[in-house]
Amino acid sequence: MTKQALHIVKIGGNIIDAPEALASFLANFAAIQGPKLLVHGGGKIATSMAADLGIVSQMIDGRRVTDAESLRIVTMVYAGWINKSIVASLQALKCNSIGLTGPDGAFVVSKKRNSEPFDYGFVGDIEHVKAKDLAGLITAGFSPVFAPITADVTGQLLNTNADTMAQALAIALSEYFETTLTYCFEKQGVLMDPNDDNSVISQINPANFAQLKADGIVSAGMIPKLENALKAISKGVQAVRLCHPDFVSQPDKGTRIQA
Amino acid sequence: MTKQALHIVKIGGNIIDAPEALASFLANFAAIQGPKLLVHGGGKIATSMAADLGIVSQMIDGRRVTDAESLRIVTMVYAGWINKSIVASLQALKCNSIGLTGPDGAFVVSKKRNSEPFDYGFVGDIEHVKAKDLAGLITAGFSPVFAPITADVTGQLLNTNADTMAQALAIALSEYFETTLTYCFEKQGVLMDPNDDNSVISQINPANFAQLKADGIVSAGMIPKLENALKAISKGVQAVRLCHPDFVSQPDKGTRIQA
Repeated sequence: MTKQALHIVKIGGNIIDAPEALASFLANFAAIQGPKLLVHGGGKIATSMAADLGIVSQMIDGRRVTDAESLRIVTMVYAGWINKSIVASLQALKCNSIGLTGPDGAFVVSKKRNSEPFDYGFVGDIEHVKAKDLAGLITAGFSPVFAPITADVTGQLLNTNADTMAQALAIALSEYFETTLTYCFEKQGVLMDPNDDNSVISQINPANFAQLKADGIVSAGMIPKLENALKAISKGVQAVRLCHPDFVSQPDKGTRIQA
Repeated sequence: MTKQALHIVKIGGNIIDAPEALASFLANFAAIQGPKLLVHGGGKIATSMAADLGIVSQMIDGRRVTDAESLRIVTMVYAGWINKSIVASLQALKCNSIGLTGPDGAFVVSKKRNSEPFDYGFVGDIEHVKAKDLAGLITAGFSPVFAPITADVTGQLLNTNADTMAQALAIALSEYFETTLTYCFEKQGVLMDPNDDNSVISQINPANFAQLKADGIVSAGMIPKLENALKAISKGVQAVRLCHPDFVSQPDKGTRIQA
Protein backbone atom coordinates (compact mmCIF):
# COMPACT_ATOMS: atom_id res chain seq x y z
CA MET A 1 0.00 0.00 0.00
CA THR A 2 1.36 3.43 -0.90
CA LYS A 3 1.87 5.68 2.08
CA GLN A 4 0.76 9.29 1.99
CA ALA A 5 3.52 11.92 1.90
CA LEU A 6 4.25 13.82 5.12
CA HIS A 7 6.43 16.92 5.29
CA ILE A 8 8.22 17.51 8.59
CA VAL A 9 9.96 20.88 8.80
CA LYS A 10 12.33 22.17 11.46
CA ILE A 11 13.07 25.87 11.95
CA GLY A 12 15.63 27.32 14.31
CA GLY A 13 16.07 30.38 16.44
CA ASN A 14 17.34 32.63 13.65
CA ILE A 15 13.89 32.60 12.00
CA ILE A 16 12.00 32.83 15.29
CA ASP A 17 13.97 35.92 16.32
CA ALA A 18 13.12 37.74 13.05
CA PRO A 19 9.37 38.53 12.90
CA GLU A 20 9.32 39.24 9.15
CA ALA A 21 11.30 36.15 8.26
CA LEU A 22 9.01 34.10 10.49
CA ALA A 23 5.85 35.50 8.88
CA SER A 24 7.27 34.79 5.43
CA PHE A 25 8.27 31.25 6.44
CA LEU A 26 4.84 30.50 7.94
CA ALA A 27 3.13 31.57 4.70
CA ASN A 28 5.42 29.17 2.82
CA PHE A 29 4.84 26.38 5.35
CA ALA A 30 1.06 26.85 5.09
CA ALA A 31 1.44 26.50 1.29
CA ILE A 32 2.88 22.98 1.56
CA GLN A 33 0.23 20.63 0.19
CA GLY A 34 -0.98 17.70 2.27
CA PRO A 35 0.02 16.46 5.73
CA LYS A 36 2.71 18.51 7.46
CA LEU A 37 4.31 18.96 10.85
CA LEU A 38 6.53 21.75 12.19
CA VAL A 39 9.19 21.59 14.90
CA HIS A 40 10.52 24.91 16.13
CA GLY A 41 13.54 25.80 18.23
CA GLY A 42 13.86 28.53 20.76
CA GLY A 43 15.71 31.63 19.69
CA LYS A 44 17.07 34.31 21.94
CA ILE A 45 13.84 35.26 23.75
CA ALA A 46 14.43 32.74 26.55
CA THR A 47 18.00 33.92 27.08
CA SER A 48 17.02 37.58 27.19
CA MET A 49 14.06 36.87 29.48
CA ALA A 50 16.28 34.90 31.87
CA ALA A 51 18.71 37.84 31.88
CA ASP A 52 15.82 40.26 32.59
CA LEU A 53 14.83 38.07 35.54
CA GLY A 54 18.40 38.03 36.81
CA ILE A 55 18.79 34.29 36.18
CA VAL A 56 22.40 33.52 35.35
CA SER A 57 22.89 30.71 32.87
CA GLN A 58 24.96 28.04 34.60
CA MET A 59 27.93 26.61 32.78
CA ILE A 60 29.80 23.60 34.13
CA ASP A 61 32.98 22.63 32.30
CA GLY A 62 31.84 24.68 29.33
CA ARG A 63 28.46 22.93 29.13
CA ARG A 64 25.21 24.77 29.63
CA VAL A 65 23.12 23.41 32.48
CA THR A 66 19.33 23.62 32.46
CA ASP A 67 18.51 24.27 36.11
CA ALA A 68 14.93 24.43 37.48
CA GLU A 69 14.57 28.15 36.78
CA SER A 70 15.92 27.84 33.24
CA LEU A 71 13.54 24.94 32.57
CA ARG A 72 10.63 27.11 33.68
CA ILE A 73 11.73 29.91 31.36
CA VAL A 74 12.24 27.71 28.28
CA THR A 75 8.91 25.94 28.87
CA MET A 76 7.15 29.30 29.11
CA VAL A 77 8.86 30.82 26.11
CA TYR A 78 8.99 27.79 23.77
CA ALA A 79 5.72 26.01 24.65
CA GLY A 80 3.81 29.18 25.59
CA TRP A 81 4.71 32.30 23.66
CA ILE A 82 6.51 30.98 20.56
CA ASN A 83 4.35 27.90 20.06
CA LYS A 84 0.99 29.65 20.46
CA SER A 85 2.09 32.67 18.37
CA ILE A 86 3.04 30.31 15.53
CA VAL A 87 -0.17 28.28 15.86
CA ALA A 88 -2.38 31.42 15.85
CA SER A 89 -0.54 32.77 12.78
CA LEU A 90 -0.90 29.46 10.93
CA GLN A 91 -4.62 29.30 11.75
CA ALA A 92 -5.01 32.81 10.31
CA LEU A 93 -3.38 31.37 7.14
CA LYS A 94 -6.00 28.55 7.13
CA CYS A 95 -3.47 25.92 8.17
CA ASN A 96 -5.18 23.79 10.84
CA SER A 97 -2.25 23.73 13.24
CA ILE A 98 -2.25 22.32 16.77
CA GLY A 99 0.55 23.22 19.19
CA LEU A 100 2.15 20.34 21.05
CA THR A 101 5.01 19.34 23.32
CA GLY A 102 6.19 15.88 24.32
CA PRO A 103 3.72 15.31 27.18
CA ASP A 104 0.68 16.26 25.06
CA GLY A 105 -0.83 12.91 24.17
CA ALA A 106 2.46 11.48 25.51
CA PHE A 107 3.51 11.75 21.87
CA VAL A 108 7.19 12.09 22.79
CA VAL A 109 8.51 10.58 26.01
CA SER A 110 12.04 11.35 27.12
CA LYS A 111 14.45 10.45 29.89
CA LYS A 112 16.63 12.82 31.89
CA ARG A 113 20.13 12.78 30.45
CA ASN A 114 22.45 11.01 32.80
CA SER A 115 26.02 11.42 31.77
CA GLU A 116 28.17 11.47 34.86
CA PRO A 117 30.36 13.21 35.74
CA PHE A 118 28.49 15.93 33.79
CA ASP A 119 25.03 16.92 34.97
CA TYR A 120 23.18 18.78 32.23
CA GLY A 121 20.26 19.39 34.56
CA PHE A 122 16.73 19.12 33.17
CA VAL A 123 17.67 17.94 29.70
CA GLY A 124 15.79 15.04 28.12
CA ASP A 125 16.82 12.50 25.52
CA ILE A 126 13.95 11.00 23.53
CA GLU A 127 13.02 7.43 24.44
CA HIS A 128 9.77 6.86 22.60
CA VAL A 129 7.42 8.45 20.04
CA LYS A 130 3.76 7.37 20.17
CA ALA A 131 3.60 7.44 16.39
CA LYS A 132 0.25 5.72 15.89
CA ASP A 133 -1.74 8.30 17.89
CA LEU A 134 0.17 11.18 16.33
CA ALA A 135 -0.40 9.74 12.85
CA GLY A 136 -4.10 9.59 13.69
CA LEU A 137 -4.11 13.28 14.57
CA ILE A 138 -2.35 14.13 11.30
CA THR A 139 -4.73 11.95 9.28
CA ALA A 140 -7.65 13.73 11.00
CA GLY A 141 -6.42 16.95 9.34
CA PHE A 142 -4.28 18.61 11.99
CA SER A 143 -0.80 20.03 11.38
CA PRO A 144 1.13 19.53 14.64
CA VAL A 145 3.53 22.28 15.71
CA PHE A 146 6.04 20.93 18.24
CA ALA A 147 7.98 22.95 20.81
CA PRO A 148 11.15 21.17 21.99
CA ILE A 149 9.93 20.43 25.51
CA THR A 150 9.28 16.86 26.61
CA ALA A 151 8.57 14.99 29.86
CA ASP A 152 9.66 11.70 31.34
CA VAL A 153 7.27 9.02 32.62
CA THR A 154 7.15 10.64 36.07
CA GLY A 155 5.86 13.92 34.61
CA GLN A 156 9.15 15.81 34.90
CA LEU A 157 9.40 18.38 32.09
CA LEU A 158 12.72 18.35 30.21
CA ASN A 159 14.43 20.62 27.70
CA THR A 160 15.07 18.73 24.46
CA ASN A 161 17.08 19.44 21.33
CA ALA A 162 14.75 20.50 18.50
CA ASP A 163 16.85 18.94 15.70
CA THR A 164 16.81 15.61 17.52
CA MET A 165 13.06 15.90 18.14
CA ALA A 166 12.40 16.53 14.43
CA GLN A 167 14.51 13.51 13.52
CA ALA A 168 12.85 11.22 16.09
CA LEU A 169 9.39 12.28 14.86
CA ALA A 170 10.40 11.72 11.23
CA ILE A 171 11.77 8.24 11.91
CA ALA A 172 8.77 7.15 13.99
CA LEU A 173 6.17 8.59 11.59
CA SER A 174 7.84 6.82 8.63
CA GLU A 175 5.90 3.74 9.67
CA TYR A 176 2.71 5.57 8.60
CA PHE A 177 3.84 8.12 6.02
CA GLU A 178 6.42 8.60 3.28
CA THR A 179 8.29 11.20 5.29
CA THR A 180 10.48 14.05 4.11
CA LEU A 181 12.35 15.91 6.86
CA THR A 182 13.39 19.45 5.96
CA TYR A 183 15.88 21.41 8.05
CA CYS A 184 15.67 25.12 7.27
CA PHE A 185 18.90 27.08 7.52
CA GLU A 186 20.35 30.33 6.24
CA LYS A 187 21.99 28.83 3.10
CA GLN A 188 20.33 27.69 -0.11
CA GLY A 189 21.55 24.16 0.59
CA VAL A 190 24.87 22.35 0.94
CA LEU A 191 27.25 24.33 -1.29
CA MET A 192 30.16 23.11 -3.45
CA ASP A 193 31.68 26.56 -2.95
CA PRO A 194 30.76 28.26 0.33
CA ASN A 195 31.03 31.66 -1.38
CA ASP A 196 28.66 30.80 -4.22
CA ASP A 197 24.99 30.49 -3.36
CA ASN A 198 24.36 29.00 -6.78
CA SER A 199 26.62 26.01 -6.13
CA VAL A 200 23.99 23.96 -4.30
CA ILE A 201 24.61 20.22 -4.33
CA SER A 202 21.12 19.00 -5.22
CA GLN A 203 21.52 15.34 -4.21
CA ILE A 204 23.60 13.61 -1.57
CA ASN A 205 23.56 9.87 -1.01
CA PRO A 206 25.83 7.53 0.95
CA ALA A 207 28.14 7.04 -2.06
CA ASN A 208 28.73 10.65 -3.05
CA PHE A 209 28.79 11.75 0.61
CA ALA A 210 31.94 9.65 1.13
CA GLN A 211 33.45 11.28 -1.95
CA LEU A 212 32.44 14.83 -0.90
CA LYS A 213 33.95 14.19 2.51
CA ALA A 214 37.14 12.74 1.06
CA ASP A 215 37.47 15.72 -1.28
CA GLY A 216 37.04 18.12 1.64
CA ILE A 217 34.02 19.76 -0.04
CA VAL A 218 31.59 19.47 2.86
CA SER A 219 32.69 21.54 5.82
CA ALA A 220 33.47 20.10 9.24
CA GLY A 221 30.31 21.71 10.66
CA MET A 222 28.15 20.12 7.99
CA ILE A 223 29.46 16.56 8.39
CA PRO A 224 27.51 15.65 11.59
CA LYS A 225 24.30 17.11 10.07
CA LEU A 226 24.72 14.95 6.97
CA GLU A 227 25.65 11.89 8.99
CA ASN A 228 22.48 12.36 11.06
CA ALA A 229 20.48 12.74 7.86
CA LEU A 230 21.88 9.49 6.47
CA LYS A 231 21.10 7.80 9.78
CA ALA A 232 17.47 9.00 9.56
CA ILE A 233 17.26 7.60 6.04
CA SER A 234 18.65 4.26 7.11
CA LYS A 235 15.83 4.20 9.68
CA GLY A 236 12.99 4.74 7.22
CA VAL A 237 12.85 8.47 6.43
CA GLN A 238 12.47 8.84 2.68
CA ALA A 239 14.53 12.03 2.32
CA VAL A 240 16.16 14.73 4.41
CA ARG A 241 16.34 18.17 2.87
CA LEU A 242 18.46 21.16 3.82
CA CYS A 243 17.13 24.42 2.41
CA HIS A 244 16.44 28.09 2.98
CA PRO A 245 13.08 28.78 4.72
CA ASP A 246 11.89 30.80 1.71
CA PHE A 247 11.85 27.62 -0.39
CA VAL A 248 10.30 25.18 2.04
CA SER A 249 7.25 24.61 -0.18
CA GLN A 250 9.37 24.00 -3.31
CA PRO A 251 10.54 20.38 -3.21
CA ASP A 252 13.19 20.84 -5.92
CA LYS A 253 15.10 23.51 -3.96
CA GLY A 254 17.95 22.89 -1.52
CA THR A 255 19.97 19.75 -0.97
CA ARG A 256 18.18 16.42 -0.85
CA ILE A 257 19.79 13.57 1.07
CA GLN A 258 18.41 10.15 0.26
CA ALA A 259 19.38 6.56 -0.23
CA MET B 1 -29.50 8.09 20.64
CA THR B 2 -28.01 8.40 24.12
CA LYS B 3 -25.07 10.72 24.30
CA GLN B 4 -21.96 9.71 26.22
CA ALA B 5 -21.27 11.61 29.46
CA LEU B 6 -18.53 14.27 29.39
CA HIS B 7 -17.12 15.90 32.52
CA ILE B 8 -15.77 19.42 32.08
CA VAL B 9 -13.95 20.75 35.13
CA LYS B 10 -12.66 24.25 35.80
CA ILE B 11 -10.02 25.01 38.41
CA GLY B 12 -8.85 28.46 39.46
CA GLY B 13 -5.69 30.13 40.63
CA ASN B 14 -6.03 29.10 44.28
CA ILE B 15 -5.38 25.45 43.35
CA ILE B 16 -2.69 26.28 40.80
CA ASP B 17 -0.76 28.32 43.35
CA ALA B 18 -0.72 25.44 45.87
CA PRO B 19 1.44 22.54 44.55
CA GLU B 20 0.07 19.94 46.99
CA ALA B 21 -3.55 20.92 46.40
CA LEU B 22 -2.91 20.79 42.65
CA ALA B 23 -1.31 17.33 42.84
CA SER B 24 -4.23 16.06 44.92
CA PHE B 25 -6.76 17.59 42.51
CA LEU B 26 -5.04 16.09 39.46
CA ALA B 27 -5.16 12.61 41.01
CA ASN B 28 -8.91 13.12 41.56
CA PHE B 29 -9.41 14.48 38.05
CA ALA B 30 -7.54 11.49 36.56
CA ALA B 31 -9.90 9.22 38.54
CA ILE B 32 -12.99 10.59 36.75
CA GLN B 33 -14.28 7.77 34.55
CA GLY B 34 -14.85 8.36 30.86
CA PRO B 35 -14.43 11.48 28.68
CA LYS B 36 -13.20 14.55 30.53
CA LEU B 37 -11.83 18.03 29.86
CA LEU B 38 -10.06 20.47 32.17
CA VAL B 39 -9.96 24.27 31.99
CA HIS B 40 -7.45 25.98 34.25
CA GLY B 41 -7.06 29.60 35.28
CA GLY B 42 -3.88 31.47 35.94
CA GLY B 43 -2.96 32.03 39.55
CA LYS B 44 -0.43 34.46 40.87
CA ILE B 45 2.61 33.27 38.90
CA ALA B 46 1.94 35.67 36.01
CA THR B 47 1.52 38.63 38.35
CA SER B 48 4.71 37.86 40.25
CA MET B 49 6.66 37.26 37.06
CA ALA B 50 5.45 40.56 35.59
CA ALA B 51 6.57 42.27 38.80
CA ASP B 52 9.99 40.55 38.58
CA LEU B 53 10.33 41.85 35.02
CA GLY B 54 9.38 45.35 36.14
CA ILE B 55 6.13 45.34 34.17
CA VAL B 56 3.55 47.48 35.93
CA SER B 57 -0.01 46.26 35.60
CA GLN B 58 -2.00 49.04 33.93
CA MET B 59 -5.27 50.06 35.49
CA ILE B 60 -7.63 52.43 33.68
CA ASP B 61 -10.69 53.59 35.65
CA GLY B 62 -10.18 50.67 38.03
CA ARG B 63 -10.11 48.09 35.23
CA ARG B 64 -7.08 45.97 34.52
CA VAL B 65 -5.71 46.39 31.02
CA THR B 66 -3.90 43.55 29.22
CA ASP B 67 -1.19 45.38 27.30
CA ALA B 68 1.20 43.67 24.85
CA GLU B 69 3.75 42.82 27.55
CA SER B 70 1.11 41.42 29.91
CA LEU B 71 -0.33 39.31 27.09
CA ARG B 72 3.11 37.84 26.46
CA ILE B 73 3.50 37.01 30.16
CA VAL B 74 0.08 35.36 30.56
CA THR B 75 0.55 33.36 27.35
CA MET B 76 3.93 32.12 28.59
CA VAL B 77 2.74 31.31 32.09
CA TYR B 78 -0.75 29.93 31.36
CA ALA B 79 -0.17 28.16 28.01
CA GLY B 80 3.49 27.31 28.67
CA TRP B 81 4.40 26.56 32.25
CA ILE B 82 1.05 25.83 33.93
CA ASN B 83 -0.54 23.99 31.02
CA LYS B 84 2.44 21.74 30.26
CA SER B 85 3.11 21.04 33.96
CA ILE B 86 -0.50 19.89 34.37
CA VAL B 87 -0.42 17.80 31.19
CA ALA B 88 2.85 16.09 32.16
CA SER B 89 1.48 15.32 35.66
CA LEU B 90 -1.75 13.90 34.23
CA GLN B 91 0.17 11.73 31.77
CA ALA B 92 2.21 10.36 34.70
CA LEU B 93 -1.21 9.47 36.24
CA LYS B 94 -2.13 7.61 33.01
CA CYS B 95 -4.66 10.27 31.98
CA ASN B 96 -4.10 10.86 28.25
CA SER B 97 -4.21 14.66 28.42
CA ILE B 98 -3.43 17.08 25.61
CA GLY B 99 -2.75 20.76 26.37
CA LEU B 100 -4.64 23.26 24.26
CA THR B 101 -5.46 26.94 23.84
CA GLY B 102 -8.03 28.59 21.58
CA PRO B 103 -5.89 28.72 18.42
CA ASP B 104 -4.94 25.03 18.62
CA GLY B 105 -7.20 23.41 16.06
CA ALA B 106 -9.02 26.78 16.08
CA PHE B 107 -11.15 25.08 18.73
CA VAL B 108 -12.04 28.42 20.37
CA VAL B 109 -12.09 31.62 18.31
CA SER B 110 -12.49 34.95 20.06
CA LYS B 111 -12.80 38.61 19.21
CA LYS B 112 -10.97 41.49 20.87
CA ARG B 113 -13.29 43.11 23.40
CA ASN B 114 -14.40 46.48 22.15
CA SER B 115 -16.20 48.42 24.79
CA GLU B 116 -15.51 52.09 24.30
CA PRO B 117 -14.74 54.23 26.14
CA PHE B 118 -12.92 51.45 28.04
CA ASP B 119 -10.08 49.67 26.31
CA TYR B 120 -9.29 46.38 28.07
CA GLY B 121 -6.36 45.77 25.73
CA PHE B 122 -5.72 42.24 24.49
CA VAL B 123 -8.78 40.63 26.01
CA GLY B 124 -10.90 38.26 23.94
CA ASP B 125 -14.57 37.35 24.12
CA ILE B 126 -15.43 33.94 22.70
CA GLU B 127 -17.19 33.97 19.35
CA HIS B 128 -17.12 30.35 18.28
CA VAL B 129 -16.23 26.85 19.48
CA LYS B 130 -15.37 24.26 16.81
CA ALA B 131 -17.19 21.59 18.78
CA LYS B 132 -17.24 18.84 16.16
CA ASP B 133 -13.44 18.64 15.82
CA LEU B 134 -12.95 18.92 19.56
CA ALA B 135 -15.54 16.18 20.16
CA GLY B 136 -13.59 14.03 17.69
CA LEU B 137 -10.41 14.51 19.72
CA ILE B 138 -12.24 13.56 22.93
CA THR B 139 -13.84 10.52 21.32
CA ALA B 140 -10.38 9.47 20.10
CA GLY B 141 -9.39 9.16 23.78
CA PHE B 142 -7.72 12.46 24.60
CA SER B 143 -8.53 14.57 27.68
CA PRO B 144 -8.08 18.21 26.60
CA VAL B 145 -6.55 20.62 29.11
CA PHE B 146 -7.34 24.22 28.15
CA ALA B 147 -5.39 27.32 29.15
CA PRO B 148 -7.50 30.52 28.93
CA ILE B 149 -5.68 32.01 25.94
CA THR B 150 -7.49 32.39 22.63
CA ALA B 151 -6.88 34.10 19.28
CA ASP B 152 -9.02 36.03 16.82
CA VAL B 153 -9.29 35.20 13.12
CA THR B 154 -6.27 37.40 12.32
CA GLY B 155 -4.05 35.34 14.64
CA GLN B 156 -3.94 37.91 17.46
CA LEU B 157 -3.59 36.13 20.80
CA LEU B 158 -6.04 37.32 23.48
CA ASN B 159 -6.41 36.81 27.22
CA THR B 160 -9.74 35.14 28.00
CA ASN B 161 -11.71 34.50 31.17
CA ALA B 162 -11.35 30.83 32.20
CA ASP B 163 -14.87 30.54 33.71
CA THR B 164 -16.36 31.83 30.46
CA MET B 165 -14.19 29.49 28.42
CA ALA B 166 -15.33 26.48 30.46
CA GLN B 167 -18.96 27.52 30.00
CA ALA B 168 -18.61 28.10 26.24
CA LEU B 169 -16.92 24.69 25.83
CA ALA B 170 -19.66 22.99 27.90
CA ILE B 171 -22.47 24.57 25.89
CA ALA B 172 -20.88 23.79 22.51
CA LEU B 173 -19.93 20.21 23.42
CA SER B 174 -23.48 19.52 24.65
CA GLU B 175 -24.36 18.87 21.03
CA TYR B 176 -22.16 15.75 21.20
CA PHE B 177 -22.10 14.75 24.87
CA GLU B 178 -24.29 14.79 27.97
CA THR B 179 -22.17 17.45 29.62
CA THR B 180 -21.61 18.17 33.30
CA LEU B 181 -19.67 21.34 34.05
CA THR B 182 -17.95 21.40 37.45
CA TYR B 183 -16.51 24.58 38.93
CA CYS B 184 -14.09 23.79 41.75
CA PHE B 185 -13.95 26.28 44.57
CA GLU B 186 -12.84 26.38 48.21
CA LYS B 187 -16.27 25.53 49.69
CA GLN B 188 -18.03 22.16 49.78
CA GLY B 189 -20.83 23.64 47.66
CA VAL B 190 -23.43 26.39 47.95
CA LEU B 191 -24.14 26.58 51.68
CA MET B 192 -27.42 27.28 53.50
CA ASP B 193 -25.29 28.63 56.35
CA PRO B 194 -21.93 30.14 55.28
CA ASN B 195 -20.43 29.08 58.63
CA ASP B 196 -21.49 25.44 58.34
CA ASP B 197 -19.66 23.32 55.77
CA ASN B 198 -22.24 20.58 56.26
CA SER B 199 -25.11 22.80 55.07
CA VAL B 200 -24.53 22.15 51.35
CA ILE B 201 -27.59 22.69 49.17
CA SER B 202 -27.41 19.57 47.03
CA GLN B 203 -29.77 20.64 44.23
CA ILE B 204 -30.62 24.01 42.74
CA ASN B 205 -33.06 24.47 39.89
CA PRO B 206 -34.79 27.56 38.45
CA ALA B 207 -37.70 27.24 40.91
CA ASN B 208 -35.79 26.89 44.18
CA PHE B 209 -33.14 29.38 43.00
CA ALA B 210 -35.81 32.11 42.93
CA GLN B 211 -36.84 31.10 46.45
CA LEU B 212 -33.23 30.93 47.76
CA LYS B 213 -32.62 34.39 46.29
CA ALA B 214 -35.84 35.83 47.74
CA ASP B 215 -34.99 34.37 51.16
CA GLY B 216 -31.53 35.95 51.02
CA ILE B 217 -29.85 32.54 51.43
CA VAL B 218 -27.51 32.70 48.45
CA SER B 219 -24.96 35.46 48.84
CA ALA B 220 -24.61 38.40 46.47
CA GLY B 221 -21.31 36.98 45.16
CA MET B 222 -22.90 33.61 44.40
CA ILE B 223 -25.91 34.97 42.46
CA PRO B 224 -24.08 35.71 39.15
CA LYS B 225 -22.37 32.27 39.29
CA LEU B 226 -25.72 30.55 39.70
CA GLU B 227 -27.37 32.70 37.04
CA ASN B 228 -24.57 31.75 34.63
CA ALA B 229 -25.05 28.11 35.56
CA LEU B 230 -28.78 28.29 34.82
CA LYS B 231 -27.99 30.01 31.53
CA ALA B 232 -25.62 27.17 30.58
CA ILE B 233 -28.37 24.66 31.40
CA SER B 234 -30.89 26.52 29.30
CA LYS B 235 -28.39 26.18 26.43
CA GLY B 236 -28.01 22.40 26.65
CA VAL B 237 -25.58 21.66 29.50
CA GLN B 238 -27.06 18.82 31.56
CA ALA B 239 -25.80 20.00 34.96
CA VAL B 240 -23.46 22.54 36.50
CA ARG B 241 -21.78 21.51 39.73
CA LEU B 242 -20.02 23.64 42.35
CA CYS B 243 -17.75 21.61 44.60
CA HIS B 244 -14.45 21.37 46.41
CA PRO B 245 -11.58 20.06 44.24
CA ASP B 246 -11.11 17.08 46.58
CA PHE B 247 -14.52 15.74 45.53
CA VAL B 248 -14.38 16.31 41.79
CA SER B 249 -14.60 12.58 41.01
CA GLN B 250 -17.58 12.03 43.36
CA PRO B 251 -20.72 13.08 41.47
CA ASP B 252 -22.93 13.19 44.58
CA LYS B 253 -20.79 15.83 46.31
CA GLY B 254 -21.25 19.61 46.07
CA THR B 255 -24.17 21.57 44.69
CA ARG B 256 -25.78 20.41 41.47
CA ILE B 257 -27.63 22.98 39.36
CA GLN B 258 -29.94 21.54 36.77
CA ALA B 259 -33.28 22.05 35.10
